[in-house]
Amino acid sequence: MKHRSLLAVVFCLSISAARADEGMWLFNGIPRERMLAQHGFAPSDAWLDHVMKSSVRFNSGGSGSFVSGDGLVITNHHVGLDQLQKMSDPSHNYARDGFLAHTPEEEVRCLDLELNVLQSIEDVTARVNAQIPAGQGGDPAGARRRVIAGIEKESREKTGLRSDVVTLYQGGAYHLYRYKRYSDIRLVFAPDEQAAFFGGDPDNFEYPRYDMDICLFRVYENGRPVHPQHFLKWSASGASDGELVFVSGHPGRTDRQLTAPELELMRDLQFPLLLETLKRREVVLDAWSARSEENERRAKDLIFFIKNSRKVRDGALAALQDPAFLGAKEAAEDAFKQRLAGRPEGRAALAAYHRIAVAERIIAKSYARYRVLEGAIGFDADSFGLARALLRSGEERPKSNGDRLPEYGDARRESFEQQLFSDKPIYEDLEIVRLADSLTALTEQLGFDDPTVQQILDGKSPRERAAALVLGTKVRDVSFRRRLYGAGTAAIAAARDPMIELARSIDGESRALRKIMEDQDEAKQQAQAAIAKARFALEGTRVYPDATFTLRLAYGTVAGYDENGAHIPAITRFAGLFERSASHHDREPFDLPARWIQAKAAVNPDAPMDFVTTCDIIGGNSGSPTINRAGEFIGIIFDGNIYSLSSDFAYDDRQSRALSVASAGILEALRKVYGADALADELVNGRR
Amino acid sequence: MKHRSLLAVVFCLSISAARADEGMWLFNGIPRERMLAQHGFAPSDAWLDHVMKSSVRFNSGGSGSFVSGDGLVITNHHVGLDQLQKMSDPSHNYARDGFLAHTPEEEVRCLDLELNVLQSIEDVTARVNAQIPAGQGGDPAGARRRVIAGIEKESREKTGLRSDVVTLYQGGAYHLYRYKRYSDIRLVFAPDEQAAFFGGDPDNFEYPRYDMDICLFRVYENGRPVHPQHFLKWSASGASDGELVFVSGHPGRTDRQLTAPELELMRDLQFPLLLETLKRREVVLDAWSARSEENERRAKDLIFFIKNSRKVRDGALAALQDPAFLGAKEAAEDAFKQRLAGRPEGRAALAAYHRIAVAERIIAKSYARYRVLEGAIGFDADSFGLARALLRSGEERPKSNGDRLPEYGDARRESFEQQLFSDKPIYEDLEIVRLADSLTALTEQLGFDDPTVQQILDGKSPRERAAALVLGTKVRDVSFRRRLYGAGTAAIAAARDPMIELARSIDGESRALRKIMEDQDEAKQQAQAAIAKARFALEGTRVYPDATFTLRLAYGTVAGYDENGAHIPAITRFAGLFERSASHHDREPFDLPARWIQAKAAVNPDAPMDFVTTCDIIGGNSGSPTINRAGEFIGIIFDGNIYSLSSDFAYDDRQSRALSVASAGILEALRKVYGADALADELVNGRR
Repeated sequence: MKHRSLLAVVFCLSISAARADEGMWLFNGIPRERMLAQHGFAPSDAWLDHVMKSSVRFNSGGSGSFVSGDGLVITNHHVGLDQLQKMSDPSHNYARDGFLAHTPEEEVRCLDLELNVLQSIEDVTARVNAQIPAGQGGDPAGARRRVIAGIEKESREKTGLRSDVVTLYQGGAYHLYRYKRYSDIRLVFAPDEQAAFFGGDPDNFEYPRYDMDICLFRVYENGRPVHPQHFLKWSASGASDGELVFVSGHPGRTDRQLTAPELELMRDLQFPLLLETLKRREVVLDAWSARSEENERRAKDLIFFIKNSRKVRDGALAALQDPAFLGAKEAAEDAFKQRLAGRPEGRAALAAYHRIAVAERIIAKSYARYRVLEGAIGFDADSFGLARALLRSGEERPKSNGDRLPEYGDARRESFEQQLFSDKPIYEDLEIVRLADSLTALTEQLGFDDPTVQQILDGKSPRERAAALVLGTKVRDVSFRRRLYGAGTAAIAAARDPMIELARSIDGESRALRKIMEDQDEAKQQAQAAIAKARFALEGTRVYPDATFTLRLAYGTVAGYDENGAHIPAITRFAGLFERSASHHDREPFDLPARWIQAKAAVNPDAPMDFVTTCDIIGGNSGSPTINRAGEFIGIIFDGNIYSLSSDFAYDDRQSRALSVASAGILEALRKVYGADALADELVNGRR
Repeated sequence: MKHRSLLAVVFCLSISAARADEGMWLFNGIPRERMLAQHGFAPSDAWLDHVMKSSVRFNSGGSGSFVSGDGLVITNHHVGLDQLQKMSDPSHNYARDGFLAHTPEEEVRCLDLELNVLQSIEDVTARVNAQIPAGQGGDPAGARRRVIAGIEKESREKTGLRSDVVTLYQGGAYHLYRYKRYSDIRLVFAPDEQAAFFGGDPDNFEYPRYDMDICLFRVYENGRPVHPQHFLKWSASGASDGELVFVSGHPGRTDRQLTAPELELMRDLQFPLLLETLKRREVVLDAWSARSEENERRAKDLIFFIKNSRKVRDGALAALQDPAFLGAKEAAEDAFKQRLAGRPEGRAALAAYHRIAVAERIIAKSYARYRVLEGAIGFDADSFGLARALLRSGEERPKSNGDRLPEYGDARRESFEQQLFSDKPIYEDLEIVRLADSLTALTEQLGFDDPTVQQILDGKSPRERAAALVLGTKVRDVSFRRRLYGAGTAAIAAARDPMIELARSIDGESRALRKIMEDQDEAKQQAQAAIAKARFALEGTRVYPDATFTLRLAYGTVAGYDENGAHIPAITRFAGLFERSASHHDREPFDLPARWIQAKAAVNPDAPMDFVTTCDIIGGNSGSPTINRAGEFIGIIFDGNIYSLSSDFAYDDRQSRALSVASAGILEALRKVYGADALADELVNGRR
């Protein structure tokens, strides 16, 4: 019930003007007039530059910020979880038990973490489009890939910065983002998982919440901590109810500007397929994990991300299956099309809508097979990912930069090699479980008698084949990967590695499926560019593009909300954590770590723990700083509430809320629970 | 790896002669010569009659046996779970905490449990087939339904016994089973769930195991305990390694005599669809259950059965996806077909194989839609089941007995009404969660734009529609059901109950889909009869029919097995339970109930807990007595090991094992842990 009316309202608005505090705004496209009109405040250029250069992107898929002049970066526990998992072993379970470096020497270097800090944005739309043939002749997708690779390489060589051309407005614009890249990142502090993720999956995306979802890293260069020019000053007092606040971070993906046929394909095919995959994995990994504590440790981060994604996507599919939602969307689209009729840009825009519908029909035909073979449905194992990367890098590297698949381009080489040569642990038993289940899914999806399936299974059952592949491959050995990576295609073939040979055996079909998708994406990008042009001409107003895992600024207020007739206050307190644990008889996942139980008498029960704001966020924003007008750090985004699960498609501020951990609560926990006074002092003072 | 070679061997054998201790034998078809040759023992007619009349069928889907002259019946905790759940409430969680009646007055009457005890078997094959038109003309499925309904009704009226005509050999034979029916059943004892199901889902279908999976009921008639003429004498010493043993119980379903096209459809469509449904339900109910202890209590039995089925079906699908399996099956089928060529029955049998393949293609086209609308995929809520039963009983009752859908036939009326008028608790919140998820699945499966889906959703989202239906219907009120049941179709329509109206709105399509399935089943039954006739003529040897949830006798030996180079002993001991719990730090699901921890010093660590045998069992055998040559109760079946999961399709005795709780262990637990000496004495003495 909650979705229907609000989405009907919201969608009409999101097509034309943004609603209330809606928006994930580009740092080079801040809506100052709107903000002044709504809140009597708009950030200055200096404010924006300072916040931009204090904001950090975690390439594993999250956000963070510099919070000390000695290189301290704060993010969420669940953003750091991937690294905590990789540095754990059977006798050190940092993911579960947390970590505190008492001295700089105790800080532990991450295995393959890359952080990016945005330095500049340049609009290169005209330059990209000038070299693309319009329509369906030639190879426009290839041409676009080549021109983008050229721009990125040129920028990389000129500035030494990581340079990514980002597609905005589904193809309406192209901006060049330049990042300072850091790859020596060390763990400083993580709380117990049960404090960071108190309430587990049942409480995930719920509110009120009581989670200390933080993790602290320090950035090094040349063996020494960096001293960033920009970092956020810590607010010891933190957020107040009703206060104007900002979120600077990297929302991963939204689908608010998609057309009706694109949303219909998501509803009827793409989301159901993804959810089926997530749920089967959740079941198989939960069951395997429960067999022993060591299994549980090995699968911990995988299971977290699967459950998290499943809950997000279930909520998003529910929005798409609400008949009022697409009805409103189609009505708004129809109204816009009527306004287009007879206008100069109208004909091209109307044709563009048709072209997108055609593209969706083509995509629908190959989508499942594409996801099974080229996506992760069929081969869910790190060993396979490494095998494919070795195979393809052998084939791609000899090509000219612009002709390669984008992930093998020169501009991304450092990042690619950091991942490929990561020394992270890969567990044979877990690999077999995952590959066996995904080969089973592949067999179900494509059909047992499909020739590709027969070739993949090689006369064995999925379980047998998975075991043979995982036990037979050498790709889990980093030195083997290093040797093959530099050695070229002949050496890779000569290695006769069974996992690489599996990747090779499907690579022709897999690349062909990818080409179908890329060609249709290109067609859709051209169409969206025509629609965007018409919209800008018709509505003259500034709109924000869908999220693209690039830096955005959101704004809103600290505000509670009403639910089933009761008011949910904006801020939770430490006392609530202990009460909620007691009300569940301290049973998992509502149990508290021993040091929290011991610290109960010492902590201030009124200290703020978490709070909610109306800021417009989505997955990828995890770890984003929540900032006040003065540019100070007052909290850190870690979740949305249950009403926010439709924000993939539309923003709403009636009940949908962004959840932050409070800066004051972080200090309270560091000092009273973890005895980490030095760290708390560094946050407050901005230096060690 | 474990399946391939063994299935190749086994399947050839199962077509002709049974392997080693293979077989779920009819009580009127015991292979005495084989048993004498293999074990030097075969049961006498008196032995069989005694065991048959001591065996009990739980209509909810399990087995049991009389074990005292005062009407005591033993089964598994997980067979009784359904009833334990129904008699629980927020302040009495019998499913979790167990139960002990210290006096007859404390025995608690079950809400809707029906027990059947087989009294006789009569072969009515000739009588059934004499009235069925062969081939595809007329309405053979209807004709067969009518003649079966007539036989059942006649027998019911003549003997007063529940009378079911059972289809054997997939249509090769029809036998009339007459049961004494009991409906006043009272709970006497249940252990804690953590003792009954120690190790939970992770240990389910594993071995060694340490589960006290038992439950004791007493059968009443006219308000007094019954004194059955036949009950099993309790063996206080129990099973010995290597001993010949028997299992008398009700295996639910096997698919060993299916043809290759039938198995292929299971592999490619039926099992994947079922598993997708089970896994999505497991995820949604696990998440809901974890939100509170009361949710956990309400969903307990549902979650148990979902996880159990998922594990069974995952194992069975793995067998079907093993290429060697169907290859061997097809080779055996081809060899059989070659032997048929030129023989008198050969032509009909060869045509029959073709007819089955045609039927499978017809079934494949409508199967998913059939399962969604007529099966439980689309409407997974007790309220919907009750609404449909009311709607259809209104339509079916006025018809002549032979023209009704079988579940509305006169012979099953008592059982039907016992279920329909059951006072079991149905939870509004759980109903909404289940119906919302299944309407979501329905929308995914049939497509959002499907006219039937649009009609079902009625302009709402699946979640909204589920809430409106569950909150709007009155079918959860037993008096409402009683009123409508007797009142006829006009009164049912006049009630304008939204759930009944939903059932009505799809009933035409749903019945039509069911008719397609029934017509093809009839065609397959005729075809299987022709194949069976040819096989009997060609091989002249006695074979057992696939399982049909009717009483069967299996035999085998108490025997451990080898796994990964180690020997797994046949019998586990009480000491092992405490060791396994400690090795998991007593964490769920390896935690022990308080009274078990307290009793640790008192119990004999060497007392047997569970043991394994080579007996041929499958789901439905749960609760079956394990019996020695003397006809004494030495244990109770509660599970199979992981290797038994392919036994749907083939028997194997190398690693596949049936798991029993030991009779001596049961006494030990009753006396030392539960202080239930009177009950233990009744078991040993055969009377109170």
